[in-house]
Amino acid sequence: MSTNTLTTNHFGVVTIVGVGLIGASIGLALKKAGVVKEVIGVGRGNANLERAKAIGAIDVISDLANACTRSQMIILCAPVAQMRDLFSTMEPYLKPHTLITDAGSTKSNMVLAAKEVLGKKVCQFIPAHPIAGGAQHGADAAKPDLFQGKQTIICPIQENAIADVELVESLWQAVGSKTRRISAIQHDAIFAAVSHLPHVLSYALMASVLNAEDADEKLSHAGAGFRDFTRIAASSPEMWRDICLANRSALLKELDQYLVVLNRMRALIAESDGETLEKIFTKSSQARNRWDIS
Amino acid sequence: MSTNTLTTNHFGVVTIVGVGLIGASIGLALKKAGVVKEVIGVGRGNANLERAKAIGAIDVISDLANACTRSQMIILCAPVAQMRDLFSTMEPYLKPHTLITDAGSTKSNMVLAAKEVLGKKVCQFIPAHPIAGGAQHGADAAKPDLFQGKQTIICPIQENAIADVELVESLWQAVGSKTRRISAIQHDAIFAAVSHLPHVLSYALMASVLNAEDADEKLSHAGAGFRDFTRIAASSPEMWRDICLANRSALLKELDQYLVVLNRMRALIAESDGETLEKIFTKSSQARNRWDIS
Repeated sequence: MSTNTLTTNHFGVVTIVGVGLIGASIGLALKKAGVVKEVIGVGRGNANLERAKAIGAIDVISDLANACTRSQMIILCAPVAQMRDLFSTMEPYLKPHTLITDAGSTKSNMVLAAKEVLGKKVCQFIPAHPIAGGAQHGADAAKPDLFQGKQTIICPIQENAIADVELVESLWQAVGSKTRRISAIQHDAIFAAVSHLPHVLSYALMASVLNAEDADEKLSHAGAGFRDFTRIAASSPEMWRDICLANRSALLKELDQYLVVLNRMRALIAESDGETLEKIFTKSSQARNRWDIS
Repeated sequence: MSTNTLTTNHFGVVTIVGVGLIGASIGLALKKAGVVKEVIGVGRGNANLERAKAIGAIDVISDLANACTRSQMIILCAPVAQMRDLFSTMEPYLKPHTLITDAGSTKSNMVLAAKEVLGKKVCQFIPAHPIAGGAQHGADAAKPDLFQGKQTIICPIQENAIADVELVESLWQAVGSKTRRISAIQHDAIFAAVSHLPHVLSYALMASVLNAEDADEKLSHAGAGFRDFTRIAASSPEMWRDICLANRSALLKELDQYLVVLNRMRALIAESDGETLEKIFTKSSQARNRWDIS
């Protein structure tokens, strides 16, 4: 379903829980597309909520219970560690036709929490993960085209009705993204490998350099390669702590596979096996160059 | 000594061995500064030598033996694995007042090779490492301002005369760089930590992802963080094989320290110790943010 087939106010009253960069950008995009009747903002920090209202990302500020009773669609954009509590708060107030989706970076744990807390109402939850973001945080950094051309992964669960999945997909398309359906388990394995693990490796390199007696001397000589490699180590510690724990089993699996490769490379260096080392480097280098073009 | 105190043709006839990005850029910079009488180019590939001549990075093309007898200064810009052979070829032709410097990424092994091959003439070798480069290769990518404002590490050895070290420093300053003296051992430890190890870690991540059955699916979902983290895995496999072997002992030391940190983080994730994990992430994140500003 393309956005231009959506009627005005197609999604009715929409609640956004957590109006940081992602949540506020969704509000701006939905209102710009003219597909919502009203956007309710819910959050922990009042200053950020007021800011989101001032830039037009939300129309009103409310508490979650009240917002729940009034909304056709609820989009959870809070940190993944808070999602279970949000489900608990919503459960008693959730109307039968209200749908919930989210923007969390991990999915299996979200599904597990939703099943445990929402019970039969879990059919109303259609998990999602928009692959967008930026170095900046908060409503101030929000922009209506944040999701334009980006991908949103939809991870339907068996309990979902097909029509509900399609409606949530059309919402994520309405903010500008392309949607793709993948199972929650596959989603978590993929992002453990290409996102969560690189963050852990990058944090670990900074930690390892900082452990050295001559840390300052080392950092003073670090160049462009180090800068690129450690850029993600500047990310929010709280958010990445939550993601590491939320996606623990998939992350540990990827980390262990990585350690096998790294220990093998260590052995090749120790044995001065330049031939095999070059083969691995060449394969990696070629794949990286191919990937960059695509 | 600042460049503008140098007389015209200060460095006389200069030979550059290896006229790739680094070597050809040195030629362009020296000629632009007007501090050389003539620049002789020596190399393996004739096409690249002709290209270096066409862009004015070198004046004439010669073989190393002939160039050696005619030069006051020889700058080795060949891959680190070739340096020992270059010293052997030069040794019989080296005149008493000719100085040798280099642009290699590792230093202890260069010093070792020079001592073994040059014997008493090792006093004529003043090791250097200009911290500059780029994604592109060859004389075609050369530019006279490649070293402008960048740092060149000078690693004097005990055999060097102070006046010779100062002359080589003024050469590296003449191409635009700031010079800094560090011992070869300290140089190698620093660059193992902030350059060589990140390259190994980045190659290992690409290799680990490629090992997965769903490698293509994983790569299709990789985003900006993965792109930054693996950018250095696109680097020349031959060059990085040589660097890993040339700086083996320092690299293994840094890699082992890194493995201690990474295994500790693995344990914290496995134990769901979010508190300690967040402490490490926060320390790394703060250090990375401080470093980026400086």
